[in-house]
Amino acid sequence: MARIALDAMGGDHAPKATIAGALLALQELTPDHAIQLVGRPEIIRAALDAQLAAAAPAVREAAARLSIVEAAEVIEMTDKPSVAIRGKPNSSMAVGLRLQADGASEAFVSAGNTGAQMAASVFILRLHAGLTRPAIATLFPSARDAVVVLDSGANVDCSAEELVQFARLGAVYAEDILRRANPAVALLSVGEEAEKGNAAVKEAHKALATADGINFIGNVEGRDVPMGACDRGPVDVVVCDGFVGNVLLKFYESVPRLMAGLLARSGVSKEQLAGALKGLDYAAHGGAPLLGIKGVSIICHGKSSPEAIKNGILVGLRAAESRMSDHIGQRLTSTAGEPA
Amino acid sequence: MARIALDAMGGDHAPKATIAGALLALQELTPDHAIQLVGRPEIIRAALDAQLAAAAPAVREAAARLSIVEAAEVIEMTDKPSVAIRGKPNSSMAVGLRLQADGASEAFVSAGNTGAQMAASVFILRLHAGLTRPAIATLFPSARDAVVVLDSGANVDCSAEELVQFARLGAVYAEDILRRANPAVALLSVGEEAEKGNAAVKEAHKALATADGINFIGNVEGRDVPMGACDRGPVDVVVCDGFVGNVLLKFYESVPRLMAGLLARSGVSKEQLAGALKGLDYAAHGGAPLLGIKGVSIICHGKSSPEAIKNGILVGLRAAESRMSDHIGQRLTSTAGEPA
Repeated sequence: MARIALDAMGGDHAPKATIAGALLALQELTPDHAIQLVGRPEIIRAALDAQLAAAAPAVREAAARLSIVEAAEVIEMTDKPSVAIRGKPNSSMAVGLRLQADGASEAFVSAGNTGAQMAASVFILRLHAGLTRPAIATLFPSARDAVVVLDSGANVDCSAEELVQFARLGAVYAEDILRRANPAVALLSVGEEAEKGNAAVKEAHKALATADGINFIGNVEGRDVPMGACDRGPVDVVVCDGFVGNVLLKFYESVPRLMAGLLARSGVSKEQLAGALKGLDYAAHGGAPLLGIKGVSIICHGKSSPEAIKNGILVGLRAAESRMSDHIGQRLTSTAGEPA
Repeated sequence: MARIALDAMGGDHAPKATIAGALLALQELTPDHAIQLVGRPEIIRAALDAQLAAAAPAVREAAARLSIVEAAEVIEMTDKPSVAIRGKPNSSMAVGLRLQADGASEAFVSAGNTGAQMAASVFILRLHAGLTRPAIATLFPSARDAVVVLDSGANVDCSAEELVQFARLGAVYAEDILRRANPAVALLSVGEEAEKGNAAVKEAHKALATADGINFIGNVEGRDVPMGACDRGPVDVVVCDGFVGNVLLKFYESVPRLMAGLLARSGVSKEQLAGALKGLDYAAHGGAPLLGIKGVSIICHGKSSPEAIKNGILVGLRAAESRMSDHIGQRLTSTAGEPA
């Protein structure tokens, strides 16, 4: 049995999109899973009633597995991260995360203020021993299977040691959420050779080359990410600092728009375009887990559609059921004796 | 009158592609321009004769404006940069660059070993006063006009001061080569706000915000690069460190292959695809100038086709004719009194 807490108030289209996403998710969850809608009860109730009034009987029935958890405050998109911790202790984020700390929930999902969600997740759930920072792991669609890229924005300046930690976090994500056995972990750099890269990357390469318990395949270059593979074979996890990861993620998000423009001029039909771009659809890949915390906190895009929220919920469920956080804790403990 | 020295021995397909590129370029140059083919005379002669034998009369006539400059040594793609300076003083790169130092040529173009070309260019032509490093400026095709991205690989670890220098270099490139008036210069970061970014970017933002003689429009994000614009309008120049720039450049190079795969599956014809991908064709944009040196050194991709070599030659010509290097020197001198 898993209970997923959803920040009903978070995101540009909340609560309409969050509640619609919860209803979509319920139809794919088994009866022993439940969703907790966290936020202002009167607002959630009104939006939920409106959607249920127009819903099919099966959806109305599934809605019995929804509960509403009261949270008096809402974190705005413009609030500073510290607001989530000190300024609004009863925000839907803080309340939703505390459910996990109190053993009343197994995962938290939000499309709200990302900085606030990171701060609140670390503050309330705490980091695993041995970690200095959490990392956001994002799935990049590729010509092959999706590639896990981390950190994709939590940390703009990273040490070599942090890059090594991200490699371990990303490997567990690939195993538990993507169900890949012995995932291939690579370091993003400006050349394949060990001596290529900036100072942090070169030092991280040395540490990873001799690290136990990780299938480190060396450096990959920017071109290998959209291919999902390098000369040495498929790539499951790509490690970089959060500045590079964030720039790359946002760059990639623009590619479908660029393609649409280029293709429209060459006479490709809308149907063909839609078919091609489906493979690059972020919503299909759902939310990005904040890795390193003792618990599950899934970050969804602020512009999340109901489909994207649903996928975020499913990612949260898989993280909870696979016990990803426990595995991260074990992996870090079992390698704590190694030189970093 | 401009004389362009071409490294006939440089690149994966040299000398066939370099000589074919020179012949293509000659057809677009006016009669007062000449190309100097630098390398081993017997090899150049043989390749040139073979191509001229099959060429149209007009091409054979234009070939009168080709000359061969002897260089006994060749830098291999696997040679270390230092080889270009000390190990092979008579390489086609060193000889080609020395022509400029001696006043016998106005530009140098090579598709050879990039690291060696950078080292030899700085060693032989020297940096302008006030600069600590050269930068490679690359054109990124966008939904709008192409965007100048620099540094795209010369420097993996950059200080804030270097980022500010790159901004000035990129602005002159946009003015002189792309002929854009008052080009909009942006700093690549993880958010539009001045306080977003890693340490070097935040410091560079502060310096640029108060810098004279530059149209600094603030930060842009990864998504703005393929669009060629941000919320505040068009973007001409994007400044970043060479690690980020190189990762992004190679990532972008993969996009057409990714698109081709996605589109083939959705039934788009080869003709439509070719039409759409034409806009992303790097060869059409030619070589990347190494900015900051006192002279002109154009870096072409190792895999350059004759078309790409031709475009590299045309870029070199435009840099020489517009006196880009002089303008860079003037711009740096006129702002030398500013706080960096």
